[in-house]
Parts: sequence; structure tokens; C-alpha cells
Amino acid sequence: MRPTPALRPSSVSRVLGPRRVPSFHRYVSHQATRSVAELLQWRPPVKADDVVVNGFVRSVRSMKAHRFVALGDGSSLAPLQALVQADHAEDLAVGAAVRLTGSWVSSPGAAQSHELHVSKVEVLGPSDAKTFPIQKKYQTPEYLRTMPHLRPRTPVNAVLLKLRSEAIASLTRFFAGRSFTQTHPPIITSSDCEGAGEVFTVTPANEASAPPNKGGDQDSFFRSKKYLTVSTQLHLEALAQAVGNVWTLSPVFRAEKSETSRHLSEFYMLEAEMSFVDDLGPVMDLAEDMLRSLSTNLIESATVQDLFSRPRNSGTDLAPADEVRRRWEGLMRQDWPRMTYSDAVALLQQKADLFEHKPTWGAGLQSEHEKYLAEYVGGGGTPVFITNYPRDIKAFYMRETQTSAAAAVPGATVDCFDLLVPEYCEIAGGSMRENRLEPLLDVMKRQGVLRPSSAGGPDQATAGGLDWYVDLRRWGCPPHGGFGLGFDRLLGYLAGVQTVRDIVSFPRWYGRCDC
Amino acid sequence: MRPTPALRPSSVSRVLGPRRVPSFHRYVSHQATRSVAELLQWRPPVKADDVVVNGFVRSVRSMKAHRFVALGDGSSLAPLQALVQADHAEDLAVGAAVRLTGSWVSSPGAAQSHELHVSKVEVLGPSDAKTFPIQKKYQTPEYLRTMPHLRPRTPVNAVLLKLRSEAIASLTRFFAGRSFTQTHPPIITSSDCEGAGEVFTVTPANEASAPPNKGGDQDSFFRSKKYLTVSTQLHLEALAQAVGNVWTLSPVFRAEKSETSRHLSEFYMLEAEMSFVDDLGPVMDLAEDMLRSLSTNLIESATVQDLFSRPRNSGTDLAPADEVRRRWEGLMRQDWPRMTYSDAVALLQQKADLFEHKPTWGAGLQSEHEKYLAEYVGGGGTPVFITNYPRDIKAFYMRETQTSAAAAVPGATVDCFDLLVPEYCEIAGGSMRENRLEPLLDVMKRQGVLRPSSAGGPDQATAGGLDWYVDLRRWGCPPHGGFGLGFDRLLGYLAGVQTVRDIVSFPRWYGRCDC
Repeated sequence: MRPTPALRPSSVSRVLGPRRVPSFHRYVSHQATRSVAELLQWRPPVKADDVVVNGFVRSVRSMKAHRFVALGDGSSLAPLQALVQADHAEDLAVGAAVRLTGSWVSSPGAAQSHELHVSKVEVLGPSDAKTFPIQKKYQTPEYLRTMPHLRPRTPVNAVLLKLRSEAIASLTRFFAGRSFTQTHPPIITSSDCEGAGEVFTVTPANEASAPPNKGGDQDSFFRSKKYLTVSTQLHLEALAQAVGNVWTLSPVFRAEKSETSRHLSEFYMLEAEMSFVDDLGPVMDLAEDMLRSLSTNLIESATVQDLFSRPRNSGTDLAPADEVRRRWEGLMRQDWPRMTYSDAVALLQQKADLFEHKPTWGAGLQSEHEKYLAEYVGGGGTPVFITNYPRDIKAFYMRETQTSAAAAVPGATVDCFDLLVPEYCEIAGGSMRENRLEPLLDVMKRQGVLRPSSAGGPDQATAGGLDWYVDLRRWGCPPHGGFGLGFDRLLGYLAGVQTVRDIVSFPRWYGRCDC
Repeated sequence: MRPTPALRPSSVSRVLGPRRVPSFHRYVSHQATRSVAELLQWRPPVKADDVVVNGFVRSVRSMKAHRFVALGDGSSLAPLQALVQADHAEDLAVGAAVRLTGSWVSSPGAAQSHELHVSKVEVLGPSDAKTFPIQKKYQTPEYLRTMPHLRPRTPVNAVLLKLRSEAIASLTRFFAGRSFTQTHPPIITSSDCEGAGEVFTVTPANEASAPPNKGGDQDSFFRSKKYLTVSTQLHLEALAQAVGNVWTLSPVFRAEKSETSRHLSEFYMLEAEMSFVDDLGPVMDLAEDMLRSLSTNLIESATVQDLFSRPRNSGTDLAPADEVRRRWEGLMRQDWPRMTYSDAVALLQQKADLFEHKPTWGAGLQSEHEKYLAEYVGGGGTPVFITNYPRDIKAFYMRETQTSAAAAVPGATVDCFDLLVPEYCEIAGGSMRENRLEPLLDVMKRQGVLRPSSAGGPDQATAGGLDWYVDLRRWGCPPHGGFGLGFDRLLGYLAGVQTVRDIVSFPRWYGRCDC
């Protein structure tokens, strides 16, 4: 279908004349432009002229003939101080987007080493300061949450955006360096089985408003009901059987009517899956190495130093800076404790008088139990792996514990772990997956995931459209395991933000989905 | 709520006894384990013993006392050759997951420099070879598409998974090196306006089956109708006004009833947005630098070399290797042509006899026009920017062209571009955004995005819940622009895969959503 090559590349310029391309400056902006963070680090011995900086006016303080302008651009928590002649400062309203040109000179004030003596002011985006909802004074997180489109303009929220970005980059390097394949598992899926009913369905807008078709689901866009994924694990397992070790950082969704500080309807999950691992040890090693690498790589960054140095009066919605530092140092330590669920219950039972709920083998750990374990087994800041939970309280796909250690406990357990940290409790969970066909089918039957075929034949019909998942076990399914980590929850923990609603730019939870 | 510190960290080991942690090998697997790719590169001068390799049996060839086993693990297109004694090879069925231990010795055969003389076979995941749907012979992409959970086990599909992973890592480095903030804009959004009705709605499963509430939308999970995002751009603009330059690699969704080779209902889009850029030049520079960096970084990788070296008989569903190489080299070239839409139409009109559709100023470019421009202005492989399309055929948020060049053309244009490549045509599009309040409201009114307030007051009610987007223009909205690139389409182009359905692991399109 290629047209006749009547016009050869070499003749294009003859036809068109010289290329009409403006002489663009590079997108890194014109040479003299620097970020606020760069300028704050820059201490030239003599004054530097023709310095250009873009940013937003955070505050304006009036002196006789001058204005002191605090300028922020999201690159640092601290603003830059700019000195502007009063007659140039008329349009410098709080919130305005401006370009300032001037000289970078050492400052007589104690608060900063240098300041910008402005010779030229360009207001690139004016602001109606009277109505600007983000004022310099302290504003509650609840108030800021009502305007997620403006909230990142506050200095602390800009730092949180940068923390997320640097964490993604660091994790990407970590996995690339270990030859893990980063994947994009599907968001729309056929399975609703893991969500226990708390899933979102997906329907084209024009079908959603129409009355149900006569043919039922047959006529719909995807021919049958589809859901937003609650976890990418099952699909990751399929991919791990192709390329060995895989990971993803993917949005997942839960339609829980939950309003706690730890739950969102939409959040990012980091999930990793490894083929050809024989037991849970390497899976825990991976989770531990990953978090240690992340914290070790980022702790010296300007972003994390901003988190540690933020003012004490930045509100009760942030954990104290020394507590946050303890969290980072905990992640950087070697050899995180690993304790079985059975040992953990025995320990908790010795301390039963501390708890409202009695620790009982076979029941899930209560939040107060997890907090205790995280704080005292971890020794203050170091995460703790609790392993080998009872079969009956865990998901169908987890492999049953086979080692001799299993014999000493009251009931069947599975090769799984929860990773606990102080205050936040569980931030990750993982397991070995049942890789053998018959044992998997047995558990699926017991847990009601597998329904007997209506034709009376061999069991093959699965609830929640999981035939393909069973299928993986028919042809070359090696021992494999992996984990999932709530990425937003991790960032909240590392930032000292008390609710995940404040670490996500546009948070969605029961009753709330702004913008 | 912290319990009394009755148990100090130092006393934990006393309570629990020595830690019951098995001596796990590291997750990088035990020291002697190597990937197939590593082994194929490894040419020791003398034979190496105790070599361990995990993988899947691709084929078994029987000799008198031996079997030649081709083993693949997804790390390379080529398999490893293993020589196994017949009496050890009984369970080596095609598709099985195995661990082989043996000596790595130079091979008498011409096809490989070394081969594995196997002393120990462990079948870790047996395979029913008779029913295994992925046979060694050529299988059509249509057939493989019916089993996305098994498809990545074919060697070419494993290479495609690795290409995606390496591209993500390379792009992450590219943006991190330029201080762009990687962000996670929301997937569930309030706006349906960009999707022109072709959007998916999101409903909790338990509401979807219930009859509509009396109170209408008021009682639903999010209180009003919500959609899957069709583009993250509008939210990215908000974030760019906080931290300057941002980007994301995010899933987006379209409920188009389209069955072309270029459209999916769910796909990944790479979007970038820059604040404080004055015109379109830096936006095009960024797109160009990004793709040049990507191709330059990856072209020498084993993955891309595998793409170039794949056998000629790998099927008509793959573009010829030399065509694929031309695409990579085109991306690596400097100074991609930039031509205005008006100049492009003038050029096309000179060649009108080549086309079925007459090129007309004011109408969109037809696919045949784009193909011609990509092939002949680009000069074979180099992408081409077509800029400044007519106002009336582009989105409301694009900034109107103000330069003197605009005066010479028949009607109003906007500062936008499409990036065209041979065969695939558009792979990216970008624009400057209207950053001024009143001009934005004017266009929104004209295009019907803004509805007059029913109270008869000033226009403030927007269709599609975009009040917040308008709001951004009230306080400090600098000139800004960005682009979106269809990530799966780019990967398909770079891999020579003819349909995006074969570059995505679990593709979803009209009528199809398997697994």
C-alpha cells in the first residue's frame, strides 16, 4: 500500500524550501535557568549575574522600597529569597507563576547564604491572591484533601511527590540490576475470586445506562462480566513461567466500604514473582534486600533530608522527624527477624495480659498483636517477618508447609509471610504458590473456588474464571513464590504521613473520588 | 496505644531460643546457577563442572544412548543444548520445568560452541507433552492469542517481555537524569469528556447487579458516576504546576468498538508535562531526545540483538529484521524533520494523484497521507513531527498559535504536533496547553465542554466534571505543554510486531478479554 516513490527524501527540501523550524532552546530550559534547589546549593564566591529562576510566589513581605519574595518550585522544601524593587513587584501575588532574572549574591540575613537581587520580573501565570485557597499558614490535611488538584503546590506535598518518583527510580534500578523483568499485567480481568465480592466491575458508558440486554452478558463489550484487578499476582505467575523472575508496579482496586487511614479504593502495589525457588527464604531475602536497597539509596537524597528537616510545627498529621528517621534506619539494618506464626502466638500468649484480644492459634493476628511483634521482636524500627500462618486463614493458592517443623504445630500451615513494621503493621505479604495440579484443585474445591462441572464430568469449571490459572500447572510449573507490597503504604510509612490519603495525589476511597 | 515495653529486644532471643531460620540460599539462586543467556556467552577454555541451569524443555531429539534437549528460560531467543543419557531423560517432556546439573564443555556441533553434559536431572514441574498447546513448530499469532497465559513461553514472546522491561528501565533513567518527577495520576476519574462517550464506567460489583437506587447516583460508592481514565494529561497538568516537569507510564482505557491492529481497550501511555516552557519546541525536543536515548541505549542489548537475529521464517506476523533495524536507526538520527500541517497539506496537494482522499486544509490527515509524510519527509525511518493543526479538529485544551506564521494559513491553528513513523503512523502527540483562564473558557464553550450555569450566573458548570481543571488557571498557571506516547504501539514498532495485540501480554479489545 506504499505510494509510488515519486518524491525522494533528497528532494524534500527543494519542494519545501528551507525547513521552517524555529530555533528552539532545549527543553532543559535556557542555559541560565536553575531550579530553586540548585540555587540554594550554589554559593559562588562573587555575585553571579543573569540568573533565571522559574517558580511560584509563596509569600511577599513588604519593606520600604523592596519586597522580599519567597519563591518555591517544588524542587526543595525551603524557598528561595528574592529581593524585588517595589515598583517591579506589583503583580507578585501569592500563588503566581513567575520568572525572575537577577543576580545571585551573598545575603546579609542569617536565614540564607545567598539571595536573588531581581532585575526583571515576568508574571507567566497571574494569581488572584484573595481567593487562592493555599495560604502560607498551616492548613489541615482534611482541608487540603478537598482540593487534590491544588494540594501538591504546598511544599510538603511537593516533597512527597518527589519521594514517590525517587523510590520508583530506585526500585527500577534494583530489579533491573538483578535481571528481573518488569511487566504490565492486565488491569481489567476476568477473575473476581480474590476480591471476596469487593471488586469493581467495568462497563462501557453506553451499556451502563442502557437496559440489560435480552441475551444477558452475551452482548456486552467483553462478552462477560469484567473486573478491575485486586492483585496482579495470578497473572504474574504466568509471566514468571516464561522469563523466570518478574515484577510490576501496578494500580489495583478494592471496592471496600472502608474509611480507615490505611485503605484506598485505588492504590499501587509492587508485586514480584520468582520461578525455580524452592522455599520461602529467597522470597523474604528479596523483599528484605529490596527495602534495604531502597532506603540505603535514598536516605542521603535531598528529598529525604527535607523529610527529616521539616519544621516541628508542620502539623500533627506528620510523624515526628526522629520517628521517621528511625524507620529509615530500621530498613537499612541487616538480618531482619523471621519468626513463625506459631512461635509468635506462643510469645503473645506469654504476654496475654497486655492485649484486649486473646492470642489464639488458628485465628488471625489482631492489630494490637502485630504492633507488639513489630515493636519488640523488630527491636524498634527493623521489620519483622511472621511466617507459616494456618492454612485455613490464608488464600487458596498458598503452598502447604511440608517441612518437619510443621509437625510440631496444632494444624496445617502454609509457606507464607507477612512483613510487619512499627505503627503501620503489615506492609507486605508473600508466599510460595501451590505449583502442583492436584493439590491446587483440592484446596480450590475445599475453599469453594472450584465448582463441580455441571455436566457431571471431572472438575474443571472454576468460580471467578480461573481455569487458565489451573492450566498453568499442567505444563511445566516449577516451584515459585513472590510477594506484594502496598507501595503507597510504604511511602506513607517512609514519609511519616499518617494516612495513605495524604500520600496519593488524587486519593479514592469510599465516598470520595475528587477530580 | 503502644503496649507496655515488658519485653525488650535483647530478651527476644532468650524467650524464643535460637532463631529458627533455615539456612536459605540467596534469591539470586545458588551460586552455581546460571541463566541460559549467561551460559551461551560463557566459553571457558576447559570444561566447567557442577553447572546448574533452570529452564523449560523446548524439544527433545533422540539419539541411540542420548537425548539432545533444547532448554530455554526466557533469557535468550536461542536455547541451550543439553546432552542427557537416555535413562535419565524419561521425564523430559516438552514443556517441563527442569533443573539440570552437569559440565559445560565445548561442543563438536557447529550450531553451538558449548553444550551441557548432564549428570543430574530434576523435573520440578512435569508436563503432559501430548496436550501441551505450545509446540515447537510455527504457530499463528491468532492461535497463540487464544491462550495468553501460555503465549509468553514461546521464545519470541519472552523476548518481547524483556524488551518492554528494558524500555521501562531506560526511560526511567532518562527522566530521572533530567529531574522529571515520575507520578501516579489516578485511574478512576470523574471526567468523561475526552473519551467522547467511549469510556468505561466503574461500579462496585454489588451495586452493578442491584436495581438503580431511588436517589439516583447519590447513593453509589463514589456518590457520582466514575470512569476509567482515557489519558492522564489533565491530572498531570495539575502535578506539573507543583513540581515543574512530570511524567508517567500509566494504563489508560478506551471502550472503542474497534478491531484494528493498532487499538486496544487497555494500554499503557507514556505522558510527560513541562511547566514554564514558552513554545512547542522544547516539548518536541523532549519527545525526540527521549526516543533517541531509548534506542541508543538499547540497540546493543542482547534483547534487541535477538530481535534483529530472529529467523526469517518466524512468520509473516513479524516485520523483516532489516526493516526493524531501519526503524531503530531512524530513531537514533539527529534533527528529526518538523513540518507544519499547512506545509504538509501543500506538499500532499502537489502529489494529490497518489492518494485516494484529496488532501484538504481543515480536514484531518488520512492514514495514506500520514504514511506518505512519514516515509518521504522522514527519509526512511526517521520520525517526522507535523505541527500546528487546525483549531477545529483538535482538543479544547490546546493553545492557539500566536506567531506570525499563523497569519499565512487559511484558519486558526493550535500549537500541537503529531509524531509520525513509517507504517505505524502516529505514535505520539503533544501540544502547548491553554494556560489562560478566559481563552480556555471560550474554547470550552464553543466546543460544548462548558455548559452555562442553570442559575443564569457566570459560566462555571463544566460538562464532564472539569471545574477543577479550569480552576488550575485561576492561580499561577505558567505556560506548559507535553505529549502522550502509546507505549505498546512504540514497543510493537520497535519489535516489528504488526499488531499491538501481540505486544501486550494479556490484550483486551472489543469482544476479547481472556484471563
